Amino acid sequence: MSISEAARRAAGAVSEERLWRRLMAMAEIGGFEGGGVRREALTGEDIEARALLLEWAAERRWPAAVDDIANLFVTRPGADADAPPIVAGSHMDSQPAGGRFDGIYGVLAAFEALEALGDAGIRTTPSLEVVAWTNEEGGRFSPGAMGSAVYAGELALDACLEVRDRDGIRLADALATTLQATPALTRRPFGRPIAAYLEPHIEQGPELERTGNQIGVVTGIQGARWFVIEVAGEPAHAGTAPLRQRKDALQSAVAMIHELAARLHDPDDRLRFTVGRLEVRPNSPNTVPAAVTFSIDLRHPELLVLDRLAPLIPSICEAAAGPCEVRITQTFERAPSVFPARMVDAVERAATGLGIAHLRLPSGAFHDANFIAELAPTAMIFVPCKGGISHSPKEDANSADVAAGARVLAATLVDLAGVA
Amino acid sequence: MSISEAARRAAGAVSEERLWRRLMAMAEIGGFEGGGVRREALTGEDIEARALLLEWAAERRWPAAVDDIANLFVTRPGADADAPPIVAGSHMDSQPAGGRFDGIYGVLAAFEALEALGDAGIRTTPSLEVVAWTNEEGGRFSPGAMGSAVYAGELALDACLEVRDRDGIRLADALATTLQATPALTRRPFGRPIAAYLEPHIEQGPELERTGNQIGVVTGIQGARWFVIEVAGEPAHAGTAPLRQRKDALQSAVAMIHELAARLHDPDDRLRFTVGRLEVRPNSPNTVPAAVTFSIDLRHPELLVLDRLAPLIPSICEAAAGPCEVRITQTFERAPSVFPARMVDAVERAATGLGIAHLRLPSGAFHDANFIAELAPTAMIFVPCKGGISHSPKEDANSADVAAGARVLAATLVDLAGVA
Repeated sequence: MSISEAARRAAGAVSEERLWRRLMAMAEIGGFEGGGVRREALTGEDIEARALLLEWAAERRWPAAVDDIANLFVTRPGADADAPPIVAGSHMDSQPAGGRFDGIYGVLAAFEALEALGDAGIRTTPSLEVVAWTNEEGGRFSPGAMGSAVYAGELALDACLEVRDRDGIRLADALATTLQATPALTRRPFGRPIAAYLEPHIEQGPELERTGNQIGVVTGIQGARWFVIEVAGEPAHAGTAPLRQRKDALQSAVAMIHELAARLHDPDDRLRFTVGRLEVRPNSPNTVPAAVTFSIDLRHPELLVLDRLAPLIPSICEAAAGPCEVRITQTFERAPSVFPARMVDAVERAATGLGIAHLRLPSGAFHDANFIAELAPTAMIFVPCKGGISHSPKEDANSADVAAGARVLAATLVDLAGVA
Repeated sequence: MSISEAARRAAGAVSEERLWRRLMAMAEIGGFEGGGVRREALTGEDIEARALLLEWAAERRWPAAVDDIANLFVTRPGADADAPPIVAGSHMDSQPAGGRFDGIYGVLAAFEALEALGDAGIRTTPSLEVVAWTNEEGGRFSPGAMGSAVYAGELALDACLEVRDRDGIRLADALATTLQATPALTRRPFGRPIAAYLEPHIEQGPELERTGNQIGVVTGIQGARWFVIEVAGEPAHAGTAPLRQRKDALQSAVAMIHELAARLHDPDDRLRFTVGRLEVRPNSPNTVPAAVTFSIDLRHPELLVLDRLAPLIPSICEAAAGPCEVRITQTFERAPSVFPARMVDAVERAATGLGIAHLRLPSGAFHDANFIAELAPTAMIFVPCKGGISHSPKEDANSADVAAGARVLAATLVDLAGVA
């Protein structure tokens, strides 16, 4: 579990001050009061963030390229120009009311790592690249992780072009505007080989902070199944209808959720079971509910567990439906991503070698790494975020932690790439 | 349990055809496709309905009067002009999407009963009056039962005048327009003595239909307590937040409602416990709910039962709150009305004497009779409605049943009034 001298030098050249300054410069693009950032995909703010990154790349004379969905690549050339590059990054778009770190941290940590290698005079065999995937959040144009999914061939570009945002703007038009803002960039094809992919990110959960670790060595991304449960009852007068004759959709939904919570209880607290949305019709205090719709979000790092638990949901709901009708629809499924041991070990070795406290953990949230893992050996590096809060203007992280992530990334890149 | 010969003659003179024809004529005022009626209080439709009733009264040469909240009275004079009248009726306004019977049936059954007495040549000692109370539904101007509450002195007219409807129209202005439409009517004061009050109404519940009875002898109106329960948790990412660390407002609300339903279970099925409204924030499938607000509507005919159960609600909710905060607010309280035995017996005697199948039962819904019962000996006469459905365009009743209600009313009026 030791790292090379070059890896140690690269990590040592990471500048906490420079990385923080760049994070704060990006946070001003779409920044609003209270620390929030609104920099949605393919907006003017997104275009401005891209321009700023390209300005910094130009200072280093690093070439840049885009593909047809505006995924943006900045290359630090290696000794072997023909070898597939090792790529690191994340995304620059934010939630409609997001924070200063989600996504952008991964791009700037990768940029900082490459700068550190430059400052340390380390030449790698393959090229190293920073990537900013387009539209990871999906808040403006659905679905999220669009750029990485299209790049990995999991989603067709044509299937995205007619998607419209809340103002009726077509993705095709917003994309054209974004690409026209950088006409000089080389255009590269989707699916161009990647030797390895590393994605630094804030944890978006509380484990690192709670356990006092500075680095999360991410073992994979948990899988998810989403369901919509529709409960159909009958409206009735709250004063006159005897309870035995009611078909009260809310009482049935409550019985279902109560039973689901009991049956899906995980003593190890690894399973994530969430009913985040629930709608009642007609939703009047003195009318017995005629219909309820609720969502289930079920996640676990192990496919076997999801495969065992997901089929219980229809039977639990049906058994608790009482006099109501129930319809269960699975609306989304994503298998867990399990990162290759070689990649996870490389990250852990870097953290250990640099003496940074770390913890192996799966990612609870989805990331571009979900899709790139289908194409290339992938791993992720987490840093703590305050209170586990994300997708919020309150999202916060500290300068030492984000620098530690860039150091681990720099060391990992050097050890994976090898020195020319 | 026998009725007078005059009472029998009055009941026999009720015209099922005439009553049904008038119900259908009124149903055209504000009527819409599918059997629905929109004739909200103090609208043009309400004014039109009043005019039609006054036209029919004029054909009988019966004088009419209003008070300052536009409660409308039609008088069939008795032998003793100074004796307080016996009054029967209900209201003519409807829900925004109401049916053809709620309210208007009581007014027209009373009008039919008086016509039957006229046709049978029966002269009563006190006068008999038909009343149409203003704004029982409360859908346009809150609160409901406004006219009867003001008449009974339970609500001040001044407290109503500035109330605005959804378009910003003041009640004072809508009321002035309504009163100006009938400038010739005598104006009478609030609280003028009433010797007895009878309110025919569709049941708005399923008991009469289920038990095969044509008449409900209403023993009183159940009391109600309304609560709003506010559950405060914390938002979190559905993928990352471990369940043990969550403050999931929906899971806490579900635990509360589940426990409330169990603890408020009534083996006799007389208690009405309804959670009709529930709102989740932010109501996003992949965010742990930060806040839930739900309503409780609790009703029972016995004050002692409400007094015993209502105080359990805060303790049950607090015990089930888990890691969340909960705030319980009682937003409404109405004590049960218990009708005098003499009045209930009079209705039952009439039904028995006429050989009409009947059942004693409390009213689950509120009525103008709630307030008039504070002023005068009161009873109600229910007729079946299809499937117990009300406050809906699907509200339905049949011609034979509504005529039976008018017959029982006619006989009861004659026996209470006495023949001059």
